[in-house]
Amino acid sequence: MTDNKATASAQIGVIGLAVMGSNLARNLARHGYTVALYNRTFAKTEELVSAYGDEGTFVASQELADFVASLERPRKMIIMVKAGGPTDAVIESLIPLLEEGDIIVDGGNAHYEDTRRREAYLRDKGLHFVGAGISGGEEGALNGPSIMPGGPAESYVTLGPILEDISAKVDGEPCCTHIGPDGAGHFVKMVHNGIEYADMQFIAEAYDILRAAGLEAGELAEVFTEWNTGDLDSYLIEITAEVLRHVDAETGKPFVDVVADAAAQKGTGQWTVQIALQLGVPVNTIAESVFARSTSGHIALREASRAALQGPARAAVDAADRAALVENVRQALWASKVVAYAQGLDQIRTASEEFGWDIDIAGVAKIWRAGCIIRARLLERIRSEYAAHNLTTLLEAPSVAAGLESSQDGWRAAVAHAVANGVPVPGFSAALAYYDTVRAERLPASLVQGLRDFFGAHTYNRVDRPGVFHTEWSGDRSESDQG
Amino acid sequence: MTDNKATASAQIGVIGLAVMGSNLARNLARHGYTVALYNRTFAKTEELVSAYGDEGTFVASQELADFVASLERPRKMIIMVKAGGPTDAVIESLIPLLEEGDIIVDGGNAHYEDTRRREAYLRDKGLHFVGAGISGGEEGALNGPSIMPGGPAESYVTLGPILEDISAKVDGEPCCTHIGPDGAGHFVKMVHNGIEYADMQFIAEAYDILRAAGLEAGELAEVFTEWNTGDLDSYLIEITAEVLRHVDAETGKPFVDVVADAAAQKGTGQWTVQIALQLGVPVNTIAESVFARSTSGHIALREASRAALQGPARAAVDAADRAALVENVRQALWASKVVAYAQGLDQIRTASEEFGWDIDIAGVAKIWRAGCIIRARLLERIRSEYAAHNLTTLLEAPSVAAGLESSQDGWRAAVAHAVANGVPVPGFSAALAYYDTVRAERLPASLVQGLRDFFGAHTYNRVDRPGVFHTEWSGDRSESDQG
Repeated sequence: MTDNKATASAQIGVIGLAVMGSNLARNLARHGYTVALYNRTFAKTEELVSAYGDEGTFVASQELADFVASLERPRKMIIMVKAGGPTDAVIESLIPLLEEGDIIVDGGNAHYEDTRRREAYLRDKGLHFVGAGISGGEEGALNGPSIMPGGPAESYVTLGPILEDISAKVDGEPCCTHIGPDGAGHFVKMVHNGIEYADMQFIAEAYDILRAAGLEAGELAEVFTEWNTGDLDSYLIEITAEVLRHVDAETGKPFVDVVADAAAQKGTGQWTVQIALQLGVPVNTIAESVFARSTSGHIALREASRAALQGPARAAVDAADRAALVENVRQALWASKVVAYAQGLDQIRTASEEFGWDIDIAGVAKIWRAGCIIRARLLERIRSEYAAHNLTTLLEAPSVAAGLESSQDGWRAAVAHAVANGVPVPGFSAALAYYDTVRAERLPASLVQGLRDFFGAHTYNRVDRPGVFHTEWSGDRSESDQG
Repeated sequence: MTDNKATASAQIGVIGLAVMGSNLARNLARHGYTVALYNRTFAKTEELVSAYGDEGTFVASQELADFVASLERPRKMIIMVKAGGPTDAVIESLIPLLEEGDIIVDGGNAHYEDTRRREAYLRDKGLHFVGAGISGGEEGALNGPSIMPGGPAESYVTLGPILEDISAKVDGEPCCTHIGPDGAGHFVKMVHNGIEYADMQFIAEAYDILRAAGLEAGELAEVFTEWNTGDLDSYLIEITAEVLRHVDAETGKPFVDVVADAAAQKGTGQWTVQIALQLGVPVNTIAESVFARSTSGHIALREASRAALQGPARAAVDAADRAALVENVRQALWASKVVAYAQGLDQIRTASEEFGWDIDIAGVAKIWRAGCIIRARLLERIRSEYAAHNLTTLLEAPSVAAGLESSQDGWRAAVAHAVANGVPVPGFSAALAYYDTVRAERLPASLVQGLRDFFGAHTYNRVDRPGVFHTEWSGDRSESDQG
C-alpha cells in the first residue's frame, strides 16, 4: 500500500534506499509502521514500493520537503547513506525543514567523533541527533538487527520503542537499548566490528592449522558444524561451516580454494585500533586481525617474500593425532575469542569513563546476543557475568576464568603446533600473549624502564617506595629522586 | 667565550635550552660554530654559558629579536622546545623577525603532519622550514646524534654541512642526510622510534624467557655482553648488559628487580602504529610493543587478572638445556629484530610513495648506523642490501633471507618454549607470525572473504579469472560477476 499525499501520516522515515536502507524500511513497514521514504534518485524509491509495497504502508516522496512533511511530530528519520560527506550533506538539507524536538538518526558506520560533532551541532539547533549502530548485514536489517543507539536519552522515549520493535529478540527481549549520550552508540558498534575482525581471524587460523594438518574443506565443514553445537555456538561458526561446505560449481573445487586470499576491509577495524591506541587500551588481537587483512592484500610484499623465504619442514599429522589437534584448536579458538571480547569491552569501559557515557556493559552484551554478526552463545555468559559482578576485565569473571584455565593447555598446544609447522597464527598468539601478560606477577617492563632511563633519562618508579627516580648511568650510578 | 653584542656573528642558533637543546648548542660550539642562544627564561641561558662557555663561542640573547639579529644570513635556527603548541608559538614569534630564505629547524619529535602543515605555511612566507629528527638522547645530542632533516632540498645546501659536522660518524661518514621534502625527516624519525619500541620489547622478552628459566640478572648481563660481540651487536644490547649488571645500592638486589614493571611511553610509537594503519602497512611487531607497554601500566587490569587467572606448570630447565635455550632465544631476538626493521622500512617506503618523498632507504640505514638509539651492526647489512638491490622488503635481501632461514628453528623453539611455560612473548610471536604470513603460498584470508560475502555481500575475487563475484548464499548459491 502506498500513500503519496504528503500529509503527516508516517511514524518514521528512511533516507537512502540502498540495500540496508530498503531492508530497514521494509522491516519497519512489516511491523505496522507507516514509513516515509526518500532517496536521491526517485526511481530507487519507486522500485522499493513496487516490489514490496504490499508488505506495509510506505509514503514515497520525490522531494525532501515532502518527505519531512509526511512525518508525524516529533519527526523521526533514519539516514542510511554513505558515512562522511554524504551524511553531512543530508543533515544540512534537513535542518531548514525540521522543527525543535525532531529526531535525526544516523544508521551508518560513522566515526564516533563525527557523531559527537554532529550531535553537538544539532543540539544547538534544538534537534536530536542519534548515532545508531546497526549490525546484522542485509538480512539483519530486514528481519531484525542488533541496534545500538546513542544520542540524547530524551530522544529514546519516542524513538526507542520503534527501534526495539524491529530489532532482533532473545526470549522476547529486544536487541536494542540506549547505549549512552552522543557518540556512545557508534563507538560500541565500532568495537563490535573490531571484535568481529578478531573473531573471523581466529576462525581463519583454526581453519588454516587444520587444513595444513591434512583435513579437507568438507571435513572442516563438519568440524565447524560440530563446534557449533557447543561453547563456540555462534553465527560466524555456523556460516563458516556453510562456506567450507560450498563447492564451486564451475571448477568442482571447494569454494574456499577458488576465492582469492586477499581480505578487504572497510575501516571500522582500523578505527578501533587507532582509537584504542589513543585511549591506551591494549587490543592486540584486533590489531593483529586488521594487520592480517592488510598483509594478505599486500601482493608485492607477499610475492617478494615467497620467492625468498623458506618455511620449516612440516610434520605429517596422522589420523590418531588429528582428533587431539582438532580439540586443541577448538580450545584455542574459544579462549582467543574470549580475549578479544575482553579487549573490546575494556575499550568500551575506558571510553565510557573518558567521555562520561555511563555505558552498561551487561546491556551491550545483552543486545549482541542476536541480530548482529558476532552473536554467540558466549554473549549470554558475558551478560550474566557483567550483571552479577563489577568487572574490571571479562577475564576475571569466575566462569570465564575457569573456562580459560581448562582451555589453556589445548590453546598452548595449538599455538606451539602452528609455530613449529610454519602456520601463521598472529591472532591466537596475540591472545595468548595477552593472557600471559595480564596475569604475570612481574613483567620485563622493568627492564624497558631501565633502558629508557639509561639512554633518555626518562626516570622510573621503584617497587619499594614512592618517588620518581633516575640513575646517573654515565657517572657513579647513584640514584636520585626526581619526583 | 661569550659575545653579548647582538651583531650578526652567529652561524646558527638554538631556541629552547633544556637538556637536548643545551647539548646540541654545546656540540655546535665545540665544532667551532658561533652559536646564538635563546631560552624563554634567561637564567637557563646564563647557566649554560657560565657552565660551558669555555667550550666555544656563544651569543646569549635575552630577547628573541636580539637572538635573530645575532644570526648571519640566511639565518639558521634550531627550535628545541616541546612538540605541539609551544613549537607553533615560537614559530609565530619568529615570523615577523625573519627574512626570505631564513631557515627554521624543528629538532623535536613533531608529528609529520604538523611538520607538513608548518612547512607549507612558512613556504608561503618565503621561509624554509626543516623538520629534523634527532636521535641519540642527551649523550647523542652532545657528542654526535643521528640527524634526519626533511624540508626543502635548497635549505640543505647551507644547513646540511653544519648538521653533518655535528652528527655521529661511521668511518668518517656523517650520520645525517637530507631525507626528503616537508615531513619526511620527522616521519623517518618517528619510524626509528617505532623500531626502537620493538627492539626494546624483544630484548625484554629475551630477558624474561631466560630469567623464567632460572638465569639470574648477573648471568644475563654476561649473556647480553656475549651477544653484543656477534650479529646482535648494538647499543641497546650493550646497555641492556649494563642495566642487568647494575645492583641497587639501597637493597643489594639486582636493579631490574627494584624498578616498577610499568613502562611509560611518549607517543611516537603510538603514532607509528596509527599511521601504519592509515597507510595499510602491517607493523604488528611495533603495535605489540606499544600494547605491551600500555598493558604493563594498566594496573587495575593486571591486579584483577592476576587474582583470577592461572598459568601453566613451568618446567625446570636444567643446566644442559639452558645453553640451547640461550642460543634459541638469541636467534629469536635477531630474527624478530630483522622483522621489525622490515616493517618499519616498509612503512617508510609506502609513505615515501604516498607523499612523493623519494626517500633513499639505503641512505636512511646508513645514518642510523651510529648516533641513534637503534644503532646496530645489522644496519650496515641493511644499507648494503638496499644499495645493491631494489627491495620490496628487507626480508628478501639475500643475506637477510639466509640469516632468517638459519635462525628459524631456534626462533620457533624459543616461542614454543615461552608459550608452553606461560612467558608472554607478544613481540617474538608477532614477528614469527608475520614471517609465516608473508611467505605463505596461500592464506586463509580466502575464508574471511567468503564469510564477508556471506553476511555482508562484500564480494570476492577468484584465483582463476578476473572479476568481482558474489554468491547468492541465501538462495541457490549461484555466483554472479558484479564487476
